[in-house]
Amino acid sequence: MSTLSDDFRTAFRHHPAGVALITATVDGIPYGLTVSSLASLSIEPVAVSFSLTKESGAAGAVLSASSFMIHLLGEDHHELATNFAKPGAPRFTEEQGFQFLPTGEPYFPHAPVALRASLHSSISIGGSRLIAAEVHEILHGTHQQHLLHQDRQYLRLSGLMAASPNT
Amino acid sequence: MSTLSDDFRTAFRHHPAGVALITATVDGIPYGLTVSSLASLSIEPVAVSFSLTKESGAAGAVLSASSFMIHLLGEDHHELATNFAKPGAPRFTEEQGFQFLPTGEPYFPHAPVALRASLHSSISIGGSRLIAAEVHEILHGTHQQHLLHQDRQYLRLSGLMAASPNT
Repeated sequence: MSTLSDDFRTAFRHHPAGVALITATVDGIPYGLTVSSLASLSIEPVAVSFSLTKESGAAGAVLSASSFMIHLLGEDHHELATNFAKPGAPRFTEEQGFQFLPTGEPYFPHAPVALRASLHSSISIGGSRLIAAEVHEILHGTHQQHLLHQDRQYLRLSGLMAASPNT
Repeated sequence: MSTLSDDFRTAFRHHPAGVALITATVDGIPYGLTVSSLASLSIEPVAVSFSLTKESGAAGAVLSASSFMIHLLGEDHHELATNFAKPGAPRFTEEQGFQFLPTGEPYFPHAPVALRASLHSSISIGGSRLIAAEVHEILHGTHQQHLLHQDRQYLRLSGLMAASPNT
């Protein structure tokens, strides 16, 4: 690993990001993974971007599924986020409260917002894949602050003061 | 504008994001724009992703420049972020404290971290362009918390409590 890579890893650790749980069903099996790279990409068509780092397991399932769910997680969902980020942690247990949508994707109805989307196009770079995904449907769950990720922690934004008024 | 677009805009407004200022020089003229879509993409090679919504002006300059600077902004830089997001606001003034690097890009040395990068590849979708950029060099400025953007506001993270311990 080069010094540039190490330096980059440290620098980016402090960049704050929202947290999303992406799920898909392939051959009847539900897959899911936590990402902190989700961003709004386009309004017309409605599209988002995110990246995946391995194309096996859940990442491979998302890439091969005809559609998938992108859940924007709330600040009560840090345990769910951790479980879908850590290999071997419990996933799709009964107490996590998921259901299958009529269209087949696993859906967590307590996520504040979930987007049903499909792959539009992608870019490969090193072992990573940058995805543009078109959004077909938006499902609303429990209203709450979205979860924040920074410095390998999940943070709650509730009660935070604004640095500047709405401009 | 469809209902889906409106709904998406509202839903994504609550998704927290870090803030970056991207700058480039084209034909001796400095250009810059604020983005909230910056994400770490790859470690080997070192790469980031971000998106641009118009390909004229600053976005066009970034796309045509042989290299550009991506500044990860600190929580003291909300005014700088606002100025480079709002048409007609002051940019590259003396008091904003930028300099030109020997490689030509405009550089704000008080940004906590700045990445010198170049276009690797991109995807067009609607009026937006999703960019994969390779990072060549990392410059360190003033150490401080990074700036957060949510619900059309810039927020300070200082003093925020963790939702969960480091896992």
